[in-house]
This record gives sequence, structure tokens and C-alpha cells, in this order.
Amino acid sequence: VNMSGWKVKASVASQNTINPIRQVVDQMKIVPHPEKDMIPLSIGDPTVFGNMVTDPVVTNAVVESVQSTKNSGYPHSTGYPATREAIAKYHSHPDAPLTADDILIASGCSGALELAIAALVNPGQNVVIPSPGFSLYRTIAGNKGIEARSYKCLPDKQWEIDLAHMESLINDQTAAIIINNPSNPCGSVFTAEHLKDILAVAEKHKVPIISDEIYAEMVFSGKKFIPAATLSKNVPILACCGLAKRFLVPGWRVGWIQIHDRNGVFAEVRKGLTALSQIILGANSLVQGAIPTILTETPQSFYDDVLSVLEANAKVCYEKLSKVDGLTPVMPSGAMYLMVRIEDGKFDLADDKEFTQKMITEQSVFCLPGEIFQCPNFFRIVTTIPTERMTIAMDRIKDFCDAHRK
Amino acid sequence: VNMSGWKVKASVASQNTINPIRQVVDQMKIVPHPEKDMIPLSIGDPTVFGNMVTDPVVTNAVVESVQSTKNSGYPHSTGYPATREAIAKYHSHPDAPLTADDILIASGCSGALELAIAALVNPGQNVVIPSPGFSLYRTIAGNKGIEARSYKCLPDKQWEIDLAHMESLINDQTAAIIINNPSNPCGSVFTAEHLKDILAVAEKHKVPIISDEIYAEMVFSGKKFIPAATLSKNVPILACCGLAKRFLVPGWRVGWIQIHDRNGVFAEVRKGLTALSQIILGANSLVQGAIPTILTETPQSFYDDVLSVLEANAKVCYEKLSKVDGLTPVMPSGAMYLMVRIEDGKFDLADDKEFTQKMITEQSVFCLPGEIFQCPNFFRIVTTIPTERMTIAMDRIKDFCDAHRK
Ligand SMILES: Cc1ncc(COP(=O)(O)O)c(C=O)c1O
Ligand SMILES: Cc1ncc(COP(=O)(O)O)c(C=O)c1O
Repeated sequence: VNMSGWKVKASVASQNTINPIRQVVDQMKIVPHPEKDMIPLSIGDPTVFGNMVTDPVVTNAVVESVQSTKNSGYPHSTGYPATREAIAKYHSHPDAPLTADDILIASGCSGALELAIAALVNPGQNVVIPSPGFSLYRTIAGNKGIEARSYKCLPDKQWEIDLAHMESLINDQTAAIIINNPSNPCGSVFTAEHLKDILAVAEKHKVPIISDEIYAEMVFSGKKFIPAATLSKNVPILACCGLAKRFLVPGWRVGWIQIHDRNGVFAEVRKGLTALSQIILGANSLVQGAIPTILTETPQSFYDDVLSVLEANAKVCYEKLSKVDGLTPVMPSGAMYLMVRIEDGKFDLADDKEFTQKMITEQSVFCLPGEIFQCPNFFRIVTTIPTERMTIAMDRIKDFCDAHRK
Repeated sequence: VNMSGWKVKASVASQNTINPIRQVVDQMKIVPHPEKDMIPLSIGDPTVFGNMVTDPVVTNAVVESVQSTKNSGYPHSTGYPATREAIAKYHSHPDAPLTADDILIASGCSGALELAIAALVNPGQNVVIPSPGFSLYRTIAGNKGIEARSYKCLPDKQWEIDLAHMESLINDQTAAIIINNPSNPCGSVFTAEHLKDILAVAEKHKVPIISDEIYAEMVFSGKKFIPAATLSKNVPILACCGLAKRFLVPGWRVGWIQIHDRNGVFAEVRKGLTALSQIILGANSLVQGAIPTILTETPQSFYDDVLSVLEANAKVCYEKLSKVDGLTPVMPSGAMYLMVRIEDGKFDLADDKEFTQKMITEQSVFCLPGEIFQCPNFFRIVTTIPTERMTIAMDRIKDFCDAHRK
């Protein structure tokens, strides 16, 4: 209570800007078992363990950009032309060509998603989003007074979208279909066929797609990442991407939108995006100046090494947890996560929240409960940790399950 | 016209996100006189001429930050604690103390302003903003369905605010008073007395202040920059600042909010700001990691040198244009701009737009018309250019006026 006569309210938009990670995690007691060192498998930041560091080519490109002192002025609000050109080349595909004008640089893939949603959707309209899914889509929708409708992804079908369910959510107020491929939190990677089926739904209802492709190219051996835009000549797509994950530099806050216009239907939206980009003026210029080098000169071995660690870790998790009675891990095909189902009624634990909470207290292993991703009775494992520690963590999860099995 | 059956509209918010600089400049023909090299005095980017480069201490701090490879992960959405601590120390004042928790790092001062307005104001409410003033306030308001009401600043009183006019605009829907000191486009610097009078209006109506202090400390010899928050124990203030101008690195996109709470009245707003910061997750981590060094080790001589160029240029402009019949320059006290009044009926030119347009075509001197800053019959001069070129530009403006005087 203040006696000063001032009553300053926070805006409704800020009150409706809800991050479920914070909402849930802030309620948890993150106090590990005193005799076991904490193994956090919770944060989608590949840099936290120190085992995953970006390539020297990437670092040196930024150092050169800084030392040139040429990249400190305001870039155009959509980004330096040479940087947009380099990004367009990096993503361009015969079936989905891009020019520099089709690229808009933003403050992280988060900033790209925020702009894409802001350009397409009015308050009161709705977007359909994946469940399980990355929580930011719902956070942004809440902030803007947009309804977020969750469509189911199916664990028994490698997390493919339940298209009938998705379609049932679409109405004349649906302004965008948001998909995420490869997926956080599932690690799923869509096949060409499944993507074509998704595109057919978008085309039938004439709803544009926002395709979150921040994990583009991060797929395991034998799998293939297919950009949604390469499979349709008609469905307009805003594909959101960035440096964060593939280059292991999430703090740099550089992302972008690829505007895949189709027959000019995005003409207005393109203008809208440019207008919106003028509010905060894009992303850090030093990194922008380094991007042409980063995208062309990072050695293939760097990408391969990162993926081989991620794949090895995913396999350790999958193999170890497959043997635990009461848990059903779903083997991922890419990205840096995997989801594990907690079988109903197997444990003396009420739900995924109690499960993950007690796993911290008793085993010092921290995973996020599925609830955060709109997917109760699952938990998410981040696979960026050194493999030895991953193995220890899986053994602890086994012990935990053994202790709590009914 | 597209025949595909798709009708994708841009959102209302994006259509209402209007940048008057682009709106006006895109209509102008920026084609200089073929025999005169272009002298652009239009952009508030101190780096464009190459004469103003940040200090090596600043550059080296970022290089070290990059090479450490320690600053590439996600910082907290409000910024690294050590960086917020350093910023709090940098601004802290016995009469307006700050801790790390009072600092929220954002994507440029633009991002800071966007967050501040988003946290305080609902659609349908209003903010009062300066005229002449930086156009972003109105752009953000338009984006959010907020009404922007312009209060007059008085050229004959060194651009002090017409407080009676400001007060007449405040009603029960006014959620923030936005002030800008030192000012773009005026170069004005408010005295303690004037600031106290502004604070008294805020206190009387119980309306919090957003104080845009991106030009903090950038004042000429004999002038003093006074942070608004140091003069009131009661008025809650969100002060927005950043690296862009003082350190000559606008492209780096790092700004921040100082939350000057008063008796806890900002408790809700503080939470709202944190929630909003989780959408795009702050500013580039490499620069954040360098900020403790930048703020403490940049030599005083750097700041002094920059200001002596700005002051010398302002004097050249003022002295030269004071002698031009029909023009009335207003001598600035800081920042990097000065406004020049075009006397009514003196020239065979309809308005400030025609004036600045023909100055490009005939003299290759590019200044922004006052209209952009809601201040018709003025034009703005940017004072960051090398002094020799500034002198040439002023001589050309004189020739231009001589040619067009009625
Ligand atoms: C699916 C997905 N999209 C977007 C992002 C945000 O990326 P950025 O750090 O570039 O904003 C993340 C980060 O975890 C993510 O998992
Ligand atoms: C008054 C004022 N505030 C804020 C800004 C934006 O600063 P930043 O580049 O840090 O977003 C500017 C830039 O010109 C400005 O003049």
C-alpha cells in the first residue's frame, strides 16, 4: 500500500505477457540434493556447459567486424543489404528462391517471430500453434490480444501434427498457422509428405504459414531438413530463422524472416513488416557485418561435430530411458531436445510437475515439465550437455523412477 | 490483383506504425546538384562521415568479450547482472540511487522506449510528447493504438516546454509524460528549474514520466545535464538511455531503462517490464559483456573531443545562419542537432518541405524538414560532420537563401 496518492498500473498487454517457463519454474524449488551435483537439462542454451563453443571462423569474423570500425552505424532497419543478400543466398533453393529484399533481419528469431505475428494478426483474431510447442508463440499472442489455439502433435507418429485437429481449429478469424520444424521441445523433423499435407491445409483455408525454422539443418544422420517454402508454389510463408542454435550463439540476438511471397499476396504484409522493423531497428550491426563470412566460411566439420554430439546424447537418453519401466522416450530426429512420456499411474507422483520437482530435490537433475509446452505427463530433456554427464543424469533418472514406481 | 484466391491483409497495427521520416523522405527526390557533392546533414548517426569513431577502449572491450567466448549464451532477459550493476553505478546519484535490479537492458534506446510505453500505456489511453520531438514516440503510439498528444516547446525560450500547453493536454486517460533531454531535434538542455516545473506538473496530475535521456552528458561547455530523476522524490520515472550516441555506436543496439521507483508505485510496472522483456530477450550479449569496461574505462578525453567537435559545429552553424536574412537558428546547448526557423513569407518557397527539397536539388545540402518533428517552418541540421564541410554547407545554405529571397 502506498500513501502517496499515486496509482500506476501496468498495462493490460504487459499483464497478459505470460512466459510459462517463468510461471512454472519460479514456483519450483530449484534446490538440488546436497550430495549430488546439479545436472541442469532444462535450458535451451547450448553454451551453458562450455562443451559447445562456436567455431573460430565465427568468432574471428565478429572480431574483424569490430576492428574494422565500419559496422557501428545504424544499418537499414531491415538489415545491411550485403547481409540480407548473404542470408538470401544461404537459404535460397530452386523451388523457393530469395533475394535480399525477401530478408528482414530482427533481434533474434524471437524478434523475427514477434514481427511476423505482429504483421499478420490483429487482436481478437487467432493463430494455431503446436502442442507440445515452444512457449513463445503463446506469450506473443497473449501480449497482443490474439487467441492461441493449440493443435496436437502425436508422439506415436514421431510428433507429426494431428492435421484433422489442426483443421478443426481453423476458422475465418485464423490469421496464421504456426509450425516449428525441427521442433522444440520434440526434436521432431517433418518429412516432405507431412509438410505437403500441412501446406494443403493452409492452402485449403487460405491461411499463411509462419514456419519457425530456427533449428534448420540441425538433423541427425539419415534425416533431412526440408524448408516448408520449397514445397509449395501457392502458400505464402514467413520463415523465421537465425544464428542462435546452429552457430551456438543465442546471446547475439540476430535472427531474420524469409518472406516467401506467392503471387504478390504478401505485398501488404511486406510493407507492414518494414514499418514494424522501424521501431527497434533490427539487430546488432557488428554481428550483421560478420554474417556474410559466418554463413559461407564456417567449416562443415563444425556443423558435423555439433550434430554428432547432439545425436550421441539423444541416443544415450533414448536407450537408457527406453529400459525404464514407466517412461517412454520419443527418439528425436534433430534439434537439441527430446520428450519423455511419464506413464499414467506408474509412479507415486501426481503429475509432470511433481515428477520434475522431486527429480531436482532427490537426484539433482533438472528437466522442464511438459506442462510448459502444453504437454502434461511428459518432461523435456535438453541434449547439449557433455555425454558423460548425460549418462550420469540418465542413471539418476532411472534410480528416481525405481524409487517412485508404485 | 492476384487471382489465387488468397487475401492476406497486413495487421492494423502494422498499418498504423508510421515513421514520418520515411513518409516524408521517401516522397523527396534525393538527387543532388550534378556539380556539387552531396552534404547530408540529415541522419542522426554520428558515424556516417567517418570523422567520429568510438574510442579504442570501447572497441577493445568488445573484442575481448568476443574472444573470451564466455558471452555468447542467453543473458537474463533483463541483461547480465554484472552489466546491470555497472549501468546502475554509471547513472547512480545520491538523489536518485539505482541498483542492478533497477536496470533493464533493451535493444537500443528505441527498444527501451518501446518497452517503457508498452508497460505503462493501454490502447485508447494517451501520452503527451514533445513538439518538436523525436518521431519514434508517435510511431510507437500509432503501433499500439495509443493517442500521442504533442505539447509545444518554445524556440524563443531555448525550447523549454510550454507547460501550460502540456498541462492542458493531460486528462484522466494520460498514462505517461514523455520528455527528451537533451533533445533531438532541438539540441536543448533543460535547467534544474525547468525540470522541477515539469516534475511539478507530473506530480500534480500523478502521471509518471518517461524521460528519454539518450543524449545524457552530451552538453556543451558551461551547460549541465541533469537527470530528471535526481530532482524529485515522488515522481516515478522510467529513464531511457543507451550506448548509441555518447559512444558513437548506434548500430550496436544496446539501450536500457532506469526504473526510478518512488515508494513502490512502480511495483506492478516493474513486473510488467520484466514480462515484456521476455519476448525478444534484450540486447546483444557480446556488447553487454563489454559494458562494465566501456562505462568505467573510456577516457574523459574521448567524451571531451566528441563534444568539442559538436560544439564547434553548432557554433559555425549558428554564427553563419544568424547572418542570413530570413533564417533564425536556435543555438543548441547539447546533443548533435540544431533547429533553424524559416521566416514566414521571406522566400519563394511554400514551406519547409519545398525549402529542404530545393536545397538538395540546387545546393546538394540535405536537411530534414521540421514537419517530420511536428514543427513546420523549421529545418534540422545534424552537427556531426567534419567542420570544414559544415562550413561549406552553411555557405551553400546562404547562397540558397539569397537565390530564393523574395
Ligand atoms: C523453436 C524456437 N524458436 C525460436 C527460438 C528463439 O530463438 P532466438 O534465441 O534466436 O530468439 C527458440 C529458442 O529456444 C526456439 O526453441
Ligand atoms: C531522442 C532519441 N531517442 C532515442 C533514439 C534511439 O536511440 P537508439 O539508437 O539507441 O535506439 C534516438 C535516435 O536518434 C533519439 O534521437
